[in-house]
Amino acid sequence: MENFLTYWDTTAEKIENILEEKLPGVQVMPELIHEAMRYSTLGGGKRLRGMLVMAACEAVGGDVKQTDGLAAAVEMVHAYSLIHDDLPCMDDDDLRRGKPSNHRVYGDAMAVLAGDALLTLAFEILAQMPEDYGICPSVAIKVIAELSTGAGSQGMVGGQVIDISSEGKKLTPQTLDYIHKHKTGALIKAALRGGALIGGASGKELELLTSYGESLGMAFQITDDILDEIGHADQLGKAIGADRDKGKQTYPRLYGLEKSIELAEACVAECLDALKGFTCKANILRYLATFIIQRDH
Amino acid sequence: MENFLTYWDTTAEKIENILEEKLPGVQVMPELIHEAMRYSTLGGGKRLRGMLVMAACEAVGGDVKQTDGLAAAVEMVHAYSLIHDDLPCMDDDDLRRGKPSNHRVYGDAMAVLAGDALLTLAFEILAQMPEDYGICPSVAIKVIAELSTGAGSQGMVGGQVIDISSEGKKLTPQTLDYIHKHKTGALIKAALRGGALIGGASGKELELLTSYGESLGMAFQITDDILDEIGHADQLGKAIGADRDKGKQTYPRLYGLEKSIELAEACVAECLDALKGFTCKANILRYLATFIIQRDH
Repeated sequence: MENFLTYWDTTAEKIENILEEKLPGVQVMPELIHEAMRYSTLGGGKRLRGMLVMAACEAVGGDVKQTDGLAAAVEMVHAYSLIHDDLPCMDDDDLRRGKPSNHRVYGDAMAVLAGDALLTLAFEILAQMPEDYGICPSVAIKVIAELSTGAGSQGMVGGQVIDISSEGKKLTPQTLDYIHKHKTGALIKAALRGGALIGGASGKELELLTSYGESLGMAFQITDDILDEIGHADQLGKAIGADRDKGKQTYPRLYGLEKSIELAEACVAECLDALKGFTCKANILRYLATFIIQRDH
Repeated sequence: MENFLTYWDTTAEKIENILEEKLPGVQVMPELIHEAMRYSTLGGGKRLRGMLVMAACEAVGGDVKQTDGLAAAVEMVHAYSLIHDDLPCMDDDDLRRGKPSNHRVYGDAMAVLAGDALLTLAFEILAQMPEDYGICPSVAIKVIAELSTGAGSQGMVGGQVIDISSEGKKLTPQTLDYIHKHKTGALIKAALRGGALIGGASGKELELLTSYGESLGMAFQITDDILDEIGHADQLGKAIGADRDKGKQTYPRLYGLEKSIELAEACVAECLDALKGFTCKANILRYLATFIIQRDH
């Protein structure tokens, strides 16, 4: 497990370097938007989604060096979604990853545009995968299909729609599930499937990694909810109880803390089950599933 | 010229039908965002960008039936940009295409998300081009590269950044040029280049259509500025002098009306010049350039 944490740190640093290289520099015109894009993409974050891209490629025996573009692209999509989610007209959050959120620094207009530009850049990077990493164009096209479906109105954005439409309302467990599966789960699934496609996954492998991704996303989100109830502000980088204060429904509020922990553990068991037929090359995904519910931030 | 107007109407209707088919229905969950996406994409607009995709493909002797996906995608990118531009934190416009702007109907949060989802859907549609229209994946990838570059922080979004950063300031002609070339010109250029790539354009043809697109974008924008000064509100679908009222710099304000008209005419001459070596299959592009400065809305 200690080795795994070292691996995570090393990988996060690697992804940070790729992002640093792929993002336009602050001297490129228009300077301010590139500064805003870099502000919210660099210098923080767990890089979970980028790591999932790489780990899925490795799990199916692919060449991890080919995944740099997709790893950067999913992290950019994640960063864009956080910038837009934090806007005053959305979740109205002032703090993100322990620093002022994008619109608090650059203003609402620039935050909207920086998010738009990050989403667009993600697809530009994916379109360059054949040239940059020797990925076959027919595979690159499939990867673009995965990311766009996962990020769109029936994926990540759809989850945010239901989330903001539900604020202050009493949610059914079904609605809470929908929000989590889409808002968090869809991008996690796209990261895994995209990485696996680059690695040359078979149909069966793709299916199993999809099911791994669904359970992992759920475990991750339940743990996030639990941490929001019991965690420490300095570790989370946002105010404790922030979700509770807004009257948002969470797993602990719906099922109680103990039952929530049980649910998260069941998800991890499902993750490991999905990986049963994989070799030791899937060990990172195995460690990750176990670790994800034990983290404290 | 009358034939050309009939052609334009027919093509606009065709593009409307494609969009109708490609946009998720209002019964698809989450219903509200699909309603918002359809509200701002369907039922209006000149469909200039979609038509340019088709006309460029035809100009190089390609099969126009293969361009449906790209025509829809560029219109979605255009629609998303208008939704975000109209937001209170941006240009704060209440009216668009003669009806209340998206955020006036669905609220700011949904307008941000509807724009995000339209941009994402555009790339999803492009990723389906090989399957839907038999386009070679290596061509589809190039088309995605064109659209993402044209729409990104050094393209359309970049133009909007400089535009909002300049509001109320006295602009140099260079800055006004930058805004127009990027905010309007970049997407027009991407539409033409993308359509030409689908049609199998040679490098030389691509270069000439790029230069056509640059001049066309400029002619279009100067005419827009002129219409804002002298047009009629019911034809424009927005308040007359809206740009002037916000202290925005325009061509007529910078150069005077007469000189602006001359500039637009010079752009049209450049358009026709770029098409000199093309066959009669480029006639739509020729008519369009001539027409674009004569329109009244």
